[in-house]
Amino acid sequence: MKDTLIFLDHAAATPLEPKVLQAMQPYLTDLFYNPSAPYAPAISIRHDYEAAKATIAHVLGAKPDELTMTAGATESINLAFHAVSGHVVTSNIEHHAVLRAAEQHHYTLVAADERGMVSPQAVQAAITAETQLVSIALANNELGTIQPLRDIAAVVRKERARRVADDDLTPIYLHSDASQGVGQLDISVARLGVDMLTLNAAKAYGPKQVGALWSSTLVKLTPQIVGGGQEGGLRSGTENVAGTVGFAKALELATAHRKYEAGRLGELRDELQRHLTGAFSQAVVSGHQKHRLAGHLHISFPNIDAERVLFALESRSVLVATGSACAANKGTRSHVLEAIGLQPEVADGSLRLTLGHLNDQASIKRAAEIITEEVQREYDRTAGR
Amino acid sequence: MKDTLIFLDHAAATPLEPKVLQAMQPYLTDLFYNPSAPYAPAISIRHDYEAAKATIAHVLGAKPDELTMTAGATESINLAFHAVSGHVVTSNIEHHAVLRAAEQHHYTLVAADERGMVSPQAVQAAITAETQLVSIALANNELGTIQPLRDIAAVVRKERARRVADDDLTPIYLHSDASQGVGQLDISVARLGVDMLTLNAAKAYGPKQVGALWSSTLVKLTPQIVGGGQEGGLRSGTENVAGTVGFAKALELATAHRKYEAGRLGELRDELQRHLTGAFSQAVVSGHQKHRLAGHLHISFPNIDAERVLFALESRSVLVATGSACAANKGTRSHVLEAIGLQPEVADGSLRLTLGHLNDQASIKRAAEIITEEVQREYDRTAGR
Repeated sequence: MKDTLIFLDHAAATPLEPKVLQAMQPYLTDLFYNPSAPYAPAISIRHDYEAAKATIAHVLGAKPDELTMTAGATESINLAFHAVSGHVVTSNIEHHAVLRAAEQHHYTLVAADERGMVSPQAVQAAITAETQLVSIALANNELGTIQPLRDIAAVVRKERARRVADDDLTPIYLHSDASQGVGQLDISVARLGVDMLTLNAAKAYGPKQVGALWSSTLVKLTPQIVGGGQEGGLRSGTENVAGTVGFAKALELATAHRKYEAGRLGELRDELQRHLTGAFSQAVVSGHQKHRLAGHLHISFPNIDAERVLFALESRSVLVATGSACAANKGTRSHVLEAIGLQPEVADGSLRLTLGHLNDQASIKRAAEIITEEVQREYDRTAGR
Repeated sequence: MKDTLIFLDHAAATPLEPKVLQAMQPYLTDLFYNPSAPYAPAISIRHDYEAAKATIAHVLGAKPDELTMTAGATESINLAFHAVSGHVVTSNIEHHAVLRAAEQHHYTLVAADERGMVSPQAVQAAITAETQLVSIALANNELGTIQPLRDIAAVVRKERARRVADDDLTPIYLHSDASQGVGQLDISVARLGVDMLTLNAAKAYGPKQVGALWSSTLVKLTPQIVGGGQEGGLRSGTENVAGTVGFAKALELATAHRKYEAGRLGELRDELQRHLTGAFSQAVVSGHQKHRLAGHLHISFPNIDAERVLFALESRSVLVATGSACAANKGTRSHVLEAIGLQPEVADGSLRLTLGHLNDQASIKRAAEIITEEVQREYDRTAGR
């Protein structure tokens, strides 16, 4: 008989909250009207859509008309980068969506430190008179390291003030991809100090293929997708009513339970980390040990093949990741692990264990035992060669 | 007591087929894994995704890797136009998505005739040595007129052959937006003769926010949204598994029932047209009377205010459109009706009645009576002034 599935890959995908699906359901069936149509049932749907955007904006401490709904974080990130034509600064541990978008500009990559932390000083040093955008994720998707965005924002503001004083009209914005961390971190745009923020419903127990880009009134976005003029002309196409309603509900729930959930996940993660580092003294835990997502554990077992462990774990119903989901099936070594200077024999033995709603104390205890057994089996196997 | 709702705006939005929602449901709940993850449950979802794309491709008579899944027709159209940098040719009755995308290029608008038909000769005359894209919708969203795409394709092929003979490497492609007409028309890309085809699930009883761009191997697409490299690098972002599975099911159903449904809708539409033109001899039916979508009736009642009629009809539970949904709530006159030379006093009295799954003989008979009464009431009101 198969064990009950233990899912430890919440950074790659989160299940839709039943309450979220429930909120979306009417818009998947009866309330199908085009929100641009002039009759009352359609107008009522438009109101529901606007109300959902207002809820999302409220969570961010922002105004609804500062939100552009998109089909996900990747589109939001591309839209953010499309706002500028000049030099951009980002880090060498960003998600591929940010790196590829940066490559369409003149760009500088700031090196993260060995904990995956991007220092405000390094960002400052990378900013030139031509820099128009700084983009640093709120939390790294592989390591879980939470970036000092407030301090990076201060650097950007200082540069902006310098330009104003010099009558230099070149804009400079701070964008952050907050795909990871919603439901565990404060995402108030004022407190983060960002000018643009990318959100992703699919990583926050909301619907797939739904994202948003928040941008302050300071930012002049340029649409990538033109047409009927929806989203204030910034992203044309019939509005995603069900998705936006679901996203709003997911954010509401995430925000309401954030402190409890972050505490709960932090305890479970720490227990898992203690168990695994206790069993394997050679294990290397990466990411910042303090400024790290509560549910995130990146752990490397030097000299073993993490992929073999992953499949062994899968056969025992424990689902984990070896790297970021995007790179996972490409057989390449993670650029993030290279960037933080992990030796190949350490990097290749890395598991990313990300906890979330589907985990409780019993499942984490069981996972810790199974992972220990399978890593040990792999060490035994290679020792016997 | 309210009458049962009679929905006559299927060109603006279609309800999700229950079987489509049923096909999507597992991917909205249990099968939530990231299709890029390496464990079996995720790989199984990737296979389901690929199978859905294969189904869509099969309906088009194409190969799955020629399909790029998008968040809807507008994104698909933008991606198609992004494939070229040179001159583009389109018509003056296209959807705003096509017109706005064309405006980002050097472009020429071909004038449709008074029936909303774009002639191959006019397209030929507009093509220059620099033209890289011709984009003509399969069927017009306001008038329902079906374009002679095969003949337009012959014009494009001839120009391509001329260039080849002249050793001119400038590409020229034919794109068509087939958002309207899926489920009523043959959409075999070979028979249509197109190089790119835009599809929209939301107009075909499929899920919202799901589209596709088919492109032949001849076409070199350039991604607008970069990142993790999904969709062969042409459209990054985690794949929309539920949406694509739903779209495949919707297309399968539409194709299976196409001939029956086109026959059924054509009879209902003709009955409605006969009733209304019988009651109002001054009524003007626009669009091509033969080459027209089966469920489409664009009818104008000169010298009355169609918006007043729309709201009167709504109060009697009959939902209709006055123009295209995109322009409907902007208080501007339809560019399509201007383009076909409809006088303002005729254009302003226009209703777009689009029939579909939600209509049957009884509801169309009832709608014909109610529309007649309300149009008459409006004529009586204005006559009394």
